[in-house]
Amino acid sequence: MLPFRFTLRSTDGAARRGEFATPHGVVQTPAFMPVGTQGAVKAILHRDVEELGAEIILGNTYHLFLRPGDELIARRGGLHRFIGWNRPILTDSGGYQVFSLASRRVISEEGADFQSHLDGSRHLLTPERATDIQARLGSDIAMVLDECLAFPATREAAAASMTRSVRWAQRSRERLALLRTSAVDGVTVSNPGQAQFGIVQGGLFQDLRDESADATVAIGFEGYAIGGLSVGEPVDQMYAVAGDTARRLPVDRPRYLMGAGTPQDLVECVARGVDMFDCVMPTRHARNGQLFTSEGRLNIKNARYAEDDGPLDPQCGCYTCRHHSRAYLRHLYLAGEMTAGALNTLHNLSFYLDTMRRIRDAIAFRTFDIFRQEFLRSASRLSPDS
Amino acid sequence: MLPFRFTLRSTDGAARRGEFATPHGVVQTPAFMPVGTQGAVKAILHRDVEELGAEIILGNTYHLFLRPGDELIARRGGLHRFIGWNRPILTDSGGYQVFSLASRRVISEEGADFQSHLDGSRHLLTPERATDIQARLGSDIAMVLDECLAFPATREAAAASMTRSVRWAQRSRERLALLRTSAVDGVTVSNPGQAQFGIVQGGLFQDLRDESADATVAIGFEGYAIGGLSVGEPVDQMYAVAGDTARRLPVDRPRYLMGAGTPQDLVECVARGVDMFDCVMPTRHARNGQLFTSEGRLNIKNARYAEDDGPLDPQCGCYTCRHHSRAYLRHLYLAGEMTAGALNTLHNLSFYLDTMRRIRDAIAFRTFDIFRQEFLRSASRLSPDS
Repeated sequence: MLPFRFTLRSTDGAARRGEFATPHGVVQTPAFMPVGTQGAVKAILHRDVEELGAEIILGNTYHLFLRPGDELIARRGGLHRFIGWNRPILTDSGGYQVFSLASRRVISEEGADFQSHLDGSRHLLTPERATDIQARLGSDIAMVLDECLAFPATREAAAASMTRSVRWAQRSRERLALLRTSAVDGVTVSNPGQAQFGIVQGGLFQDLRDESADATVAIGFEGYAIGGLSVGEPVDQMYAVAGDTARRLPVDRPRYLMGAGTPQDLVECVARGVDMFDCVMPTRHARNGQLFTSEGRLNIKNARYAEDDGPLDPQCGCYTCRHHSRAYLRHLYLAGEMTAGALNTLHNLSFYLDTMRRIRDAIAFRTFDIFRQEFLRSASRLSPDS
Repeated sequence: MLPFRFTLRSTDGAARRGEFATPHGVVQTPAFMPVGTQGAVKAILHRDVEELGAEIILGNTYHLFLRPGDELIARRGGLHRFIGWNRPILTDSGGYQVFSLASRRVISEEGADFQSHLDGSRHLLTPERATDIQARLGSDIAMVLDECLAFPATREAAAASMTRSVRWAQRSRERLALLRTSAVDGVTVSNPGQAQFGIVQGGLFQDLRDESADATVAIGFEGYAIGGLSVGEPVDQMYAVAGDTARRLPVDRPRYLMGAGTPQDLVECVARGVDMFDCVMPTRHARNGQLFTSEGRLNIKNARYAEDDGPLDPQCGCYTCRHHSRAYLRHLYLAGEMTAGALNTLHNLSFYLDTMRRIRDAIAFRTFDIFRQEFLRSASRLSPDS
């Protein structure tokens, strides 16, 4: 029996309140996973991430594979020990970053041949290799390697890509089964309780999504992700595909929408049955001075905040809002102080994680629809540039 | 009666254990002041600075005057309120930065005419203006404007510069007296209990130093600084001048060696009667991967640390050393993660502040000389590049 176990606690419409157990602890769902690309959530410390209430973070296989290397990390006892983070970690497969390399990669049935953005060295990322690397990293949840479709895509391209992703998912699963039962030469399994999620593709074509979902579920994974969304399509289409796909996935497994999104996206996709999210938006926007608040988005560079003694968000109880004014945060940002990145990151992550807490409470109390309407109304009050 | 009050608790040789009271709290001496140039100690949060045990930080008048401006800060209630730091703050006069502008400043008896490094705007920094700006900032300790001598300097240049600094000190003191007794048009006094320190100059010529000390003490300040050292002179000369100058200063006032230095410098100058220090070295070196440890200096970039699971310093109890390995810190540094700057800054400041605690204990127990010998022996074990 694997340590990974998902328990559905309650539902409110399509929204689901649950939790999953991993070798490094339990995660309440719906969950947001801060992105710790290279083994750190940018600009802040692990203790900050913990204090914010994050129960799981995401690590990027592509970056960690290239630097410092999965073998070095395995020799250190795996990613948790190496980075000193003892709570759950999910790793992606590395595929998304490799596909983003555009002219520096060649895709074949075997896998993705790519050139490192760091030193130009060539590497072949196959479903087996992505599984091996993640086994060495020892994350609590590994992702299968999938083909990331460019947007927009023709139906033909989406279908070909989707069926290849299913074949890669099958190879990823077989590789993990092998790693679980017997040592594969040269591969250290840093976390024997590692779970593996399959990924549904198919672009914006719902019949392809259905086919992908059925085939991926037929292989059998501890959880299922919805990939290839949040790549530039209109939000309504994203919501529709996420919702229709979530509905087709097994009730007893967590559903993870990869790479989304705005706070509104999170609320809308929870409403359609999604349990897990990750996104660089709160952390990246923070470093660029874009702050999320209960009244909408705010650009701290704006001159209107130069003498504003109020907190970023009067509704927020984070360290930044308890101790600092918009005037000070604007000053630090304009002065190029690293501390601005830290304070803004604390706030934006707090906003995201607090939104997830409120979502979970609302589902448990079966008041999710009221929460959702209120949240969307207040979030739309400020435009992105205010 | 002013809130500023220095109390000498005990001595051990020339080393002094004391404390001074300010409107924002008490500071134990000998003290090290982390530098918060633009209203933040670079890369970390105020709560980190507090947890490290820093009782006072330094703010740079030049930077705060140019951005966001002393008048804006005064409208926010002063620097403490603006930056959300409720403990003591010392501000420099801005002179050091202005003199560092080299070709972009012209010095006259009136003051220093300079061009902003930010936008090229011209400003005149006089003793009166430096006093006014610091009154608006409302620091707990303000410094007089002094002329910063280039190193090396002829005796003639040193003498001329020193006597001008004395005249400027007199003007600074008179301006503060005026600010204290009656409102000067357009100057908000953000902190009525602000103290002011004079600065002893005179280069490496001890008779000029003596003359400067006597003249500055004759004006009368709440404390005295030793300026113009740690500018490139051999350490032995720095120690000698600091010691001889400290000895000439009143026993009942704190003595502040400006801009020094290495941990060894701190220990050596405490041994010669200095009570206060500030330096960017621990924070700047941290961001450059240079770490101070009980075994000497360490360069985290070094390949030898790639698989080193030990802490930066086995003797250190800081957050970084409790949670992270040299291997992880090397990885974060090479990956360019901002978190590396934060973790390294926490460690270096912890090393400095912990050294000051050990110094204070040793003086109180009259074991300072043993401490000093042991400290210097272990600190010399690693070269700066190991």
